[in-house]
Amino acid sequence: MVYNFNAGPSILPKEVFEAAAAAVLNYNNSGLSILEYGHRTPAFEAIMQEARQLMKELMNLDNDHEVLFLHGGASTHFMQVPMNLLDIKDTAAFTDTGVWAAKAINEAKLFGKAEIVCSSKEKNYTYLPKDFAVPNDAKYLHITTNNTIYGTQWQKIPITSNSIVADMSSDILSRELNFNAFDLIYAGAQKNIGAAGVTIVVVNKNILGKIKRYIPTMMDYRNHIADGSMLNTPPVFAVYTCMLTLRWLKKQGGVKEIEKINNQKAEMLYAEIDRNSLFKGTVQKEDRSKMNVTFVMNDPTKEASFLQFATQKNIMGIKGHRSVGGFRASLYNAMPLSSVAYLVSLMQEFESINN
Amino acid sequence: MVYNFNAGPSILPKEVFEAAAAAVLNYNNSGLSILEYGHRTPAFEAIMQEARQLMKELMNLDNDHEVLFLHGGASTHFMQVPMNLLDIKDTAAFTDTGVWAAKAINEAKLFGKAEIVCSSKEKNYTYLPKDFAVPNDAKYLHITTNNTIYGTQWQKIPITSNSIVADMSSDILSRELNFNAFDLIYAGAQKNIGAAGVTIVVVNKNILGKIKRYIPTMMDYRNHIADGSMLNTPPVFAVYTCMLTLRWLKKQGGVKEIEKINNQKAEMLYAEIDRNSLFKGTVQKEDRSKMNVTFVMNDPTKEASFLQFATQKNIMGIKGHRSVGGFRASLYNAMPLSSVAYLVSLMQEFESINN
Repeated sequence: MVYNFNAGPSILPKEVFEAAAAAVLNYNNSGLSILEYGHRTPAFEAIMQEARQLMKELMNLDNDHEVLFLHGGASTHFMQVPMNLLDIKDTAAFTDTGVWAAKAINEAKLFGKAEIVCSSKEKNYTYLPKDFAVPNDAKYLHITTNNTIYGTQWQKIPITSNSIVADMSSDILSRELNFNAFDLIYAGAQKNIGAAGVTIVVVNKNILGKIKRYIPTMMDYRNHIADGSMLNTPPVFAVYTCMLTLRWLKKQGGVKEIEKINNQKAEMLYAEIDRNSLFKGTVQKEDRSKMNVTFVMNDPTKEASFLQFATQKNIMGIKGHRSVGGFRASLYNAMPLSSVAYLVSLMQEFESINN
Repeated sequence: MVYNFNAGPSILPKEVFEAAAAAVLNYNNSGLSILEYGHRTPAFEAIMQEARQLMKELMNLDNDHEVLFLHGGASTHFMQVPMNLLDIKDTAAFTDTGVWAAKAINEAKLFGKAEIVCSSKEKNYTYLPKDFAVPNDAKYLHITTNNTIYGTQWQKIPITSNSIVADMSSDILSRELNFNAFDLIYAGAQKNIGAAGVTIVVVNKNILGKIKRYIPTMMDYRNHIADGSMLNTPPVFAVYTCMLTLRWLKKQGGVKEIEKINNQKAEMLYAEIDRNSLFKGTVQKEDRSKMNVTFVMNDPTKEASFLQFATQKNIMGIKGHRSVGGFRASLYNAMPLSSVAYLVSLMQEFESINN
């Protein structure tokens, strides 16, 4: 068994892999592979509908919020969100909490004004700024709810009277939030929801169509809503894996229950990082992410040795991002508590060997 | 066994389904699913590199032409191509040969001038206009090499001194062409190359960067070239299925050999349509597509009955597009000659029952 702590694309539930593999050979006993199903067939229309419905259900969305499964990756929405929401003289407010937030800021500048209301860049994004004001006339405040690279996560979503737009790529469906309080959420699927190649957009339809810009057909969220997320050929298989994972999540008891396990996993690993004489966390404690746990060694010269030790013990994907160094263990929904316990046991074993 | 003549997503080689299913369970004996592979792992980087290399090899591309595997579908490139190639005062020339061409025209108008140099709309796109002139100053001529809905295909690519851009979604790699004569080719993968959710772009890098517009990061082909088609998380699994299909095509002898079989398949089916007293083709003979064979019945009231007959005999996906009616049999690369022979035998059986 391999323990995959990769930051994304990343682990999915084993039963999703099994069902997806079976469908690639023979979908639902049809004699056809899911890969050769036309997207206008009743079979795929049912998959798309179930996936959208499960998102609504798991997020407790009201009727104003629509769910889309789109091409392009979250990076496309860095551009697409301001294209849909900002006129050239409008301002959007941004929290600069990492590389991905910074990319969203850069793209917004093409379509309007981007005002950075806070930044933790001066401390390599190791904390989340709490003390900032959002201009009243900002069309929206953009936040990255979880910063995959640095291992920070807003434990409380900033309170503002402005509309909120969130890049939720790395913690969507991992914890209970009032999702209806967001006017737009976008998230690459490849961490908590499914295979790489599809991006989920949750949008309050009332905020669309308020600007003067003419938006290209494929970029206008309204067109995708009107066509039931089937404006062009969707990424059929990627949507199918999302539907399977959402079914699995519902069976686990939904977001409420998975959050309990996510809390246990994060607490267990952070407790070990804080206890173990060899390791230390990189993030201000109150902002620690429950999805991406970043840590280094007190003696950096031992890091290569621990990485090798862990790799020999079948741990994969814990090398930290180059801009932070050290280690990063990603504990997405599909990561079992037992795998985290195993990683902790290896940290303890390594400590005993090295003391 | 089911015979899938669907227009796309569509049939792929059986060995692709088998290898893809195995990889979803356990990629290359790694103990990991291909779906949980990080895109920055050596394993996936090798897949992406092999897929790009196989495209270059199978298309005999020169060093000026780059291959990209991108998000978004061909519909996104209706917008992305003019965004990259046209300044607002520039003109692009278009052949209006169907719904998809018309969509490309509409998107181009947002970024420059779109001049329609010929159209077969008045005859419901049942032929391809041959007699037209392209303005010398047009930045490029856009053609749709094969019109999936209507069943037309340029048997000879129009000769022009202008740069040529082609939507090759439904006949890429199905026949030998001088692909280097095109400055830009785009094609949704889900017909001849792989699973839905990835689009192939082949671009002469020398035509990029010639305009004044600032292009959003994800829309600029130059950025994708610079990052080796990994500017953001690619659709990992969809790219993998492309690589498998390209390997299969190479094993068949490449484009040259598959073209021979494609010719045989199309000739066999058109011969039956022309011979059989119940059926007739919908397209001017010289423009008939070898990928999508469209036909109707002389007595339209019998069409429902033939569809039911064929469905009972395990034929799938031959109902014609609503704008043409009747039937459409898609004969993409992966469709075996024997399956076409089977369809022909059913047409003969139906004729004998109904005479």
